Amino acid sequence: MEHVQLSLAEVSALGERCLRRNGCDADNARAVSETMTLAERDACHSHGLFRLPGYVSSLRSGKVNGKAEPRLEELAPSALRVDGDRGYASLALQRGLPAFIECASQQGIATLALVNIFHFAALWVELEAIAVKNLAALAFVGATAMVAPAGAQKAFFGTNPLGFAWPRPGREPMVFDQATAAMARGEIQIAARDKRPVPLGTGLDAQGLPTTDAAAIINGGVQLPFGGYKGSSLSLMVELLSAGLLGEQFGAEASHALPKDGGPNRGGQLIIAFNPEKFGNAGAWVEHCEQFFGELLSLDGVRLPGDRRLAQRELSVRDGVEIPEPLYREILALEKD
Amino acid sequence: MEHVQLSLAEVSALGERCLRRNGCDADNARAVSETMTLAERDACHSHGLFRLPGYVSSLRSGKVNGKAEPRLEELAPSALRVDGDRGYASLALQRGLPAFIECASQQGIATLALVNIFHFAALWVELEAIAVKNLAALAFVGATAMVAPAGAQKAFFGTNPLGFAWPRPGREPMVFDQATAAMARGEIQIAARDKRPVPLGTGLDAQGLPTTDAAAIINGGVQLPFGGYKGSSLSLMVELLSAGLLGEQFGAEASHALPKDGGPNRGGQLIIAFNPEKFGNAGAWVEHCEQFFGELLSLDGVRLPGDRRLAQRELSVRDGVEIPEPLYREILALEKD
Repeated sequence: MEHVQLSLAEVSALGERCLRRNGCDADNARAVSETMTLAERDACHSHGLFRLPGYVSSLRSGKVNGKAEPRLEELAPSALRVDGDRGYASLALQRGLPAFIECASQQGIATLALVNIFHFAALWVELEAIAVKNLAALAFVGATAMVAPAGAQKAFFGTNPLGFAWPRPGREPMVFDQATAAMARGEIQIAARDKRPVPLGTGLDAQGLPTTDAAAIINGGVQLPFGGYKGSSLSLMVELLSAGLLGEQFGAEASHALPKDGGPNRGGQLIIAFNPEKFGNAGAWVEHCEQFFGELLSLDGVRLPGDRRLAQRELSVRDGVEIPEPLYREILALEKD
Repeated sequence: MEHVQLSLAEVSALGERCLRRNGCDADNARAVSETMTLAERDACHSHGLFRLPGYVSSLRSGKVNGKAEPRLEELAPSALRVDGDRGYASLALQRGLPAFIECASQQGIATLALVNIFHFAALWVELEAIAVKNLAALAFVGATAMVAPAGAQKAFFGTNPLGFAWPRPGREPMVFDQATAAMARGEIQIAARDKRPVPLGTGLDAQGLPTTDAAAIINGGVQLPFGGYKGSSLSLMVELLSAGLLGEQFGAEASHALPKDGGPNRGGQLIIAFNPEKFGNAGAWVEHCEQFFGELLSLDGVRLPGDRRLAQRELSVRDGVEIPEPLYREILALEKD
């Protein structure tokens, strides 16, 4: 495939321009484009510009409010909520972040609930923004029903990612972000686009049979949780924390909502942050944990979650990123339609 | 194998008597015995009386303080800590629970850190005690290094269980509790005792080769995480939350500590509780979630985590439980030594 080489500033400007032409105001366009750009920077292409056509279609269908004004409120002393005003999650999170970081820093632990949002981003981007403030963080977000619970053959759970970040003052935080599905939807979509097979266990075809055909899973089939019933339990937990707790849509409810425009679904997100300085090992936890990371990395065959992203980050900042030519042209066309 | 039929009251009295004869005071003996009895009640034998010889050996070696007086303190408005005074986790948790439940109920979210404890119990027992107060809860606990991180062949992580509980007012909470190892240590030990094979993927033998021989994994081999690198990331998270955050021992540190008496290791535990009434869907979340559970259970092949335990519970309360004759005789001997 042909590629177009773009600097990160060009990626960001491309995304912002396209979103503005399609109904976003400046703040919403900037927040979403920044999220996509950070994904491209770390070679997390499934959450980069690959998502832009979905963002645009969900603006054009009128489902998402491109001029959302997210509103922050305090639910309880350690629980904050942002009502996203039917906009994308990115701006809602940005609006809630300063108060959330302050709250967690003081209270020891705090939670930020995002509701009435459309989440289409990578959790690690969001978690890293918290961990650079020297907080540990957990995040849970739902999605439309695409995954069969362990034992079943029918989609009921979202791919339901959960993420975790650990602060490493003086260097990049350790952040992971993983679907409770065996494979993230975006990765299966990219495999289907590129006609690459996926590992057995990724999903079932329309007949409920195991398959390695990515397209068969996407079109009429169903994804599977990772790790059998244990991954399925975690997916159930994400449903309850991102929807049940917040009064938002469960995956199966989001699937019934219209329109199906290829964009994200409305749902909830729960984030938890901890201040390690408050947990009794103030001043010493950094060294203790860095020693732990050092010993872990001394084992043959081990790498830290996120390592490949960080390595890619350095290259992208220096050299820019490669965008597939067909995607680039699709985006230019979306600016003009 | 021959079995002895005991009522739950007899199980509890047997445990308590044996612990008292071996150095526990009344409160510590009662707390630990109650934990074992609840495990027996739910046919979770790997955390029932099967653990009693390990409890006793760790008392006899002097490692654990059977007369521990756990101390509760407030670290921050939403973060409490109990210093377990070198005793078992059961009493430390009981001493912290009322204040923790009050704190989470008011603050929306709160955390309870247990340090200087020896954890040898099932997380679901502890989480259920929180969820019956209409709070959702998460728990993380470490263990000595027994699991190879994804890609490695050497033990570095504990089996590091995490658990989750969801309150269901008017009925038993939904609770799961799962090792981030492919199989809980206790289950492998029981398989080894009973000379039953374990599934491939459970662990490696002393040569670093995959095996189905439970004894080969226990003796010189190493366990594996569930679900490959995703389970390994979760295990890493449990290390950081139960040890790094709390200034307690990581799994590899606990492994170097002495004595190795077959009992539990010193470590930390982190519990988080949420009050769903504070998250914006007060008065409606129960019905919303019960409808979700109903739809989930309407799918062919699906059951809720913990269902088998609850079914067993009814039978045990009525009929008592069966204890293997050799274990029963071992316990009677431990009372007299």
